[in-house]
Amino acid sequence: MTAEIVSVGTELLLGQIVDTHAPVMARILAECGIGCTRRVTVGDNWERLVATLKEGLDRSDILITIGGLGPTVDDLTRDAIAAALDDSLEVVPEIEDRLRLFFSSRNIPWNPSIGRQAQKPRSATLIDNPNGTAPGLFCQKNSKSVIALPGPKGEFNPMAHGRVKELLSRMEGDRVIHSRTLKIIGMGESTVEERVRDLMDSDSPSVAPYAHTGEVHLRLTAKASSVQGADEIIDPIDAKIRERLGDAVFGIDSDTVESKVIDLLKAHGKSLAVAESMTGGELGARLTMVPGSSKVFLGGGIVYSPRAKSELAEVSTSSLDNFGPVSREVASELAEGIRKKLGADFAIAITGNAGPDVDRGDQPVGQVYLALAEEGRVVVEESLYRGVREDIRRRATQQALLMIRQRLLRGNR
Amino acid sequence: MTAEIVSVGTELLLGQIVDTHAPVMARILAECGIGCTRRVTVGDNWERLVATLKEGLDRSDILITIGGLGPTVDDLTRDAIAAALDDSLEVVPEIEDRLRLFFSSRNIPWNPSIGRQAQKPRSATLIDNPNGTAPGLFCQKNSKSVIALPGPKGEFNPMAHGRVKELLSRMEGDRVIHSRTLKIIGMGESTVEERVRDLMDSDSPSVAPYAHTGEVHLRLTAKASSVQGADEIIDPIDAKIRERLGDAVFGIDSDTVESKVIDLLKAHGKSLAVAESMTGGELGARLTMVPGSSKVFLGGGIVYSPRAKSELAEVSTSSLDNFGPVSREVASELAEGIRKKLGADFAIAITGNAGPDVDRGDQPVGQVYLALAEEGRVVVEESLYRGVREDIRRRATQQALLMIRQRLLRGNR
Repeated sequence: MTAEIVSVGTELLLGQIVDTHAPVMARILAECGIGCTRRVTVGDNWERLVATLKEGLDRSDILITIGGLGPTVDDLTRDAIAAALDDSLEVVPEIEDRLRLFFSSRNIPWNPSIGRQAQKPRSATLIDNPNGTAPGLFCQKNSKSVIALPGPKGEFNPMAHGRVKELLSRMEGDRVIHSRTLKIIGMGESTVEERVRDLMDSDSPSVAPYAHTGEVHLRLTAKASSVQGADEIIDPIDAKIRERLGDAVFGIDSDTVESKVIDLLKAHGKSLAVAESMTGGELGARLTMVPGSSKVFLGGGIVYSPRAKSELAEVSTSSLDNFGPVSREVASELAEGIRKKLGADFAIAITGNAGPDVDRGDQPVGQVYLALAEEGRVVVEESLYRGVREDIRRRATQQALLMIRQRLLRGNR
Repeated sequence: MTAEIVSVGTELLLGQIVDTHAPVMARILAECGIGCTRRVTVGDNWERLVATLKEGLDRSDILITIGGLGPTVDDLTRDAIAAALDDSLEVVPEIEDRLRLFFSSRNIPWNPSIGRQAQKPRSATLIDNPNGTAPGLFCQKNSKSVIALPGPKGEFNPMAHGRVKELLSRMEGDRVIHSRTLKIIGMGESTVEERVRDLMDSDSPSVAPYAHTGEVHLRLTAKASSVQGADEIIDPIDAKIRERLGDAVFGIDSDTVESKVIDLLKAHGKSLAVAESMTGGELGARLTMVPGSSKVFLGGGIVYSPRAKSELAEVSTSSLDNFGPVSREVASELAEGIRKKLGADFAIAITGNAGPDVDRGDQPVGQVYLALAEEGRVVVEESLYRGVREDIRRRATQQALLMIRQRLLRGNR
């Protein structure tokens, strides 16, 4: 069973916006064990859209469209699906009533173009959209399936991860295909593969590795008659992998390193502060993207200038003068200084040179010092990262999260 | 003249990585005035890749492939292009010599798979790749063109913006198609369109609007016999637009608001500090992504906890108690406190509730206070943003950049 994804919209096609929905949908297909063989992006153009849908239906069992379900004349997907399936459109009275109520309550005059959102191809059932006016579509005709989802993020995401995933996981008869992704930090892809290579030959569950910046993911996929049954197939291999990789496995599925660091801090009842020179606030931004982080993350200093290093984190001018801002000594003083100032249990400091020029002391581009301070102890790590400014900063914040995580996992030592 | 973009790679197809190259390429096509009609993503699969290329060649004049030029068995693009064009492959001796030198200098033993990178379809000329081992390809056969680019970001970007853009802008005979994007902040899309609507009817240059989070872009495109000629067509309309929109036009093409704010600070000889509660460092991270920002950006406080607000920015406990952390008063004290502490000319403070829960005082999700402090004056703006946590934070940093920009543009008042 194979599927294709069709993203619809001229702004997408012309690169005015980056398509993040299609990757989400592709991952959901993978989690459901359905092979995604092609992704296509087309603009709001009737002939090209219908042609794309027809070709996709010729090649694949399932077609998933994203976007183009709105009320404007540019929104062609609903009609194009009907045309590609050689199906007719019909009005769903309950939807029309709901739309009329919605728009009249907002004093927006009704027009026929709005009414198009109440139509559906005859072969379609509707997929509820609790966050918008356009429902999704699930069409089944001639043993082909077409699923249509709206483009706005707040509507797409809950529908894709909810009802659509449920539909897709039931596509292969009454078998459920279910996956779990184990996320690994602090261990290279080759080491991970070496340690689990024999498990990667298994078919049920299948085990597939993926590398990301500073992380490796292993996806375990199994087929069974229920999600619970699939989990029972996955569990023993999950356990084997954790046995071999130990603490390097930091989470599963939607977990992020920063969310797990916040969880660990909560579990240990410890607080964290940061002092960021090279990364300019990026570590704080990552930590505070986690809802509820304010319980354990106190804040910190963006210690870009020498004065900021002294004023916010009590770095001595003699250290700045003698060792330079990118140095083991300054990293150490930054971490300890901000820790004491905010009364935190732990503090992380980052200083380095992210390039493009060697303008921060005499250190080469990519040279980074990370310090982790706690009561009575400061540990400093030195690294040389490659890549552009963005990569070097990302690697530094990733490594900082790894440092605090490993410290918390060690417990009271 | 139309073009299609084919992104090649199983990790892309399965959504393990988001494709940012295809949007870049689509924008370059648009800048060169070439219509991009379709984008396709396929995996590292021989049959599907060759079929995709053949279909694309049937439909369009130009095909641009991204990825799959490396040395491993998964890298199929070079061979697939030859197959789709019904062309044969030949070894380029100079490339093979260069590769042998490169690999022997790194003590990597030579193998035939590496040698594949020295091959090219007979109809191809090579596109120089100064940052990697695989050159790009420019094939012309049967009045069709195929351009092949490597996938690694550090190789793709300079080639795409350099030689490939040059080739594409010369595709329509000896006419150059050239564009300029005017970037606008602090004015909604509908207002922009209203003010320039009559100019949007023009064909030369064409004027097309695009909306982004907190920004509107207008792209002006003209055809001429040279880039200079195109600029001469664009200049008068550019001037008219600036006349009508005034300071709302903040830059062109690759300019960002943060880079222009850094430029303005440098031009005025002024320094900036920040105090970020809700955004947790994101404003600092944006400003410090600009190379050379350390000349004018001093740093600031990530003032997440009450203690961080007091210790780093001298907010009084009475204000925190009486007005709560999300308040006009605390925003004002944060900005003035961090400004004095770091000896900055200006300071921006952000406090608010980004959700998902109403857990920071009694303020609703999306409630944000921004303060701009300077010697003898603090201005506070209050806003209520909609959207998820990420959107609310982004809008807040965008508005903060707008505030400091407008202040700097006003000059010494």
